[in-house]
Amino acid sequence: MNDDAQDSPAPAPKPRDAGGVSRQSREEFAAVLGAIRPLDESAMAAARALQARLTKPAGSLGMLEELSVRLAGLAASCPPPLPEPAAVAVFAGDHGVHAQRVTPWPQEVTAQMVGNFLAGGAVVNAFARQTGVAITIVDVGVAGAPTWQGPRLRHARVRGGTRDLTCQAALTREEVRSALMVGVRVAGELIDEGAGLLITGDMGIANTTPAAALIAAFTGADPADVTGRGTGVDDTTYARKLAVVRAALDRHRPDPADPEGVLAAVGGLEHTALAGFLLGAAARRTPVLLDGVTAVAAGLAAAAYAPRAVDAMIAGHRSAEPGASVGLRALGLSPLLDLGLRLGEGTGALLAYPIVASAVRVLHEVATFDTAGVSEK
Amino acid sequence: MNDDAQDSPAPAPKPRDAGGVSRQSREEFAAVLGAIRPLDESAMAAARALQARLTKPAGSLGMLEELSVRLAGLAASCPPPLPEPAAVAVFAGDHGVHAQRVTPWPQEVTAQMVGNFLAGGAVVNAFARQTGVAITIVDVGVAGAPTWQGPRLRHARVRGGTRDLTCQAALTREEVRSALMVGVRVAGELIDEGAGLLITGDMGIANTTPAAALIAAFTGADPADVTGRGTGVDDTTYARKLAVVRAALDRHRPDPADPEGVLAAVGGLEHTALAGFLLGAAARRTPVLLDGVTAVAAGLAAAAYAPRAVDAMIAGHRSAEPGASVGLRALGLSPLLDLGLRLGEGTGALLAYPIVASAVRVLHEVATFDTAGVSEK
Repeated sequence: MNDDAQDSPAPAPKPRDAGGVSRQSREEFAAVLGAIRPLDESAMAAARALQARLTKPAGSLGMLEELSVRLAGLAASCPPPLPEPAAVAVFAGDHGVHAQRVTPWPQEVTAQMVGNFLAGGAVVNAFARQTGVAITIVDVGVAGAPTWQGPRLRHARVRGGTRDLTCQAALTREEVRSALMVGVRVAGELIDEGAGLLITGDMGIANTTPAAALIAAFTGADPADVTGRGTGVDDTTYARKLAVVRAALDRHRPDPADPEGVLAAVGGLEHTALAGFLLGAAARRTPVLLDGVTAVAAGLAAAAYAPRAVDAMIAGHRSAEPGASVGLRALGLSPLLDLGLRLGEGTGALLAYPIVASAVRVLHEVATFDTAGVSEK
Repeated sequence: MNDDAQDSPAPAPKPRDAGGVSRQSREEFAAVLGAIRPLDESAMAAARALQARLTKPAGSLGMLEELSVRLAGLAASCPPPLPEPAAVAVFAGDHGVHAQRVTPWPQEVTAQMVGNFLAGGAVVNAFARQTGVAITIVDVGVAGAPTWQGPRLRHARVRGGTRDLTCQAALTREEVRSALMVGVRVAGELIDEGAGLLITGDMGIANTTPAAALIAAFTGADPADVTGRGTGVDDTTYARKLAVVRAALDRHRPDPADPEGVLAAVGGLEHTALAGFLLGAAARRTPVLLDGVTAVAAGLAAAAYAPRAVDAMIAGHRSAEPGASVGLRALGLSPLLDLGLRLGEGTGALLAYPIVASAVRVLHEVATFDTAGVSEK
């Protein structure tokens, strides 16, 4: 499949920041990176001290205590605000590498699943209803000419799918910058609408292939250690997928110190937009829950732009995709859940959301030994 | 501390089924055991078939798919009812073994924490609010003469704390039967009030000591492998606690085939009531989420009465107490969460509740490939 075929039948609209707005967009992105500041140490110290006075044995809430302390540092306030409401953004894109038969699913499933999200029939919809989270769908790079509509759909297509990373760079640097800014802006809009916590979601048939390539590029891991079976491919398809990842890295030799170059060479539009989304959340000091391997790949890209962006990231779960574990380790994040999920869409992160909210709620609502009249040991 | 001291200043009321009602109570318990039936295979087959038609890759929801299938079997219906609302019951009791200094916390903290639960100031309250779960507190064996009141408090004290298991049996067989029936009845009442899922909670200073003894007795594990640091005891206290568990097992030599005898020898009133609660849930084909090591000890006791009771149990989390892992393995249950929690009260199970609800919701709300117009691979 060549570049033209990938774009047909509907040519993608021009990127939003093509031409004259490009410099403005670059300045906006630089401002985002500049706004990412360290955690507030005094709020963290206050949260640690408060945890020690609450009516429970010290340390008995395990990972939730550490998380509450970090969120206090992120908000520069103890207690930090309750992370309510939460908002999940599902970034959808297609992949030229689909032509290499790295997945048994037809490419049009990306667009069909966006339709399913808009109709409320996907797993992400069910989990979002369970946890009281609003969904936004962002078309940042779906192929074809889908005709969906809906109040929660953002049209922000940078290009109708990436180019095939086995033959050429998946994206131009300009396209990378456009997709990053799509993510930054969606994060900002959701926070402006009142979201206290953001959740990553993604949809893109074949997108575990670029995710594996990105994770290998940013961590230096061998492709065999980060390439998984995605939606459940057979041995033959898996071997082909691994060869594709290896060949792409050999061809492009991306430099992990140049995240724009890495994303251009082997990235996806949803991975790139998610990197912007994570950076946008960090710049606004808003916690963001990572879903699966696509989000982890985006997290590594975001960290390459701004290492402190990781302070705003919470690992929702450990995806069954091996690259997710490699990437989380590199980010220094421990996942809240490990349930063998490998669906994407934001599903694993949505399941983790009530745990994050509960961790913060402790700092707001639990009595201290003094106020409750409970004896200490 | 002797038995009299343990009961002072307020002697415990007589067990509810003392004297003439004892036979009726025995018959009621036998009926509960008789009502525990196997999972419904045809509902499970229907759930498996439905999972395969939903718009997601087969198996991509990992543990949630297995859980949804089991809950269909438990309800004998596909989809099973949404497990809403959920209800957590916190069983509180004291322990004669507290006299052996197995914990640095004063015994009166049990009663004080019940007051904290009733005032809404404990972690279990915060988590229950986050997840929309109603709390019931059951005094099945608190020492002293506390004066709390509240609409969600059940007075069902079998005895004002157990006897010291290092010197004598903790409970009489009659007391064990009474406490079991307290749990059975609370489960039944909550289900009658509309609960679609039950959650175990517990409060009892020193109660990880009888939990360890129970788990060792039922599994045959060495006390060193099941005795933990509870609320966080120091090395000296830990050594004393381990010696207490070992001595109790050496003294009583409880027979795991005689759960009543095991509970009488080394049990606690909250562990025993929880065993009844689990059996009561299983008899009503209602799922029940296990919290930490106290619930796991109760689960082993329940399984010794009725092995199929395990089909209704969902392991909410892996407590940091080592006995919890040993017990869960013996029960054949994999925990949903592993967050390093060691608080009890029902906190870990409450955090897991939205995951269970989400797993069931998938069977109700997610579209199939056919209805959503999504292509299959």
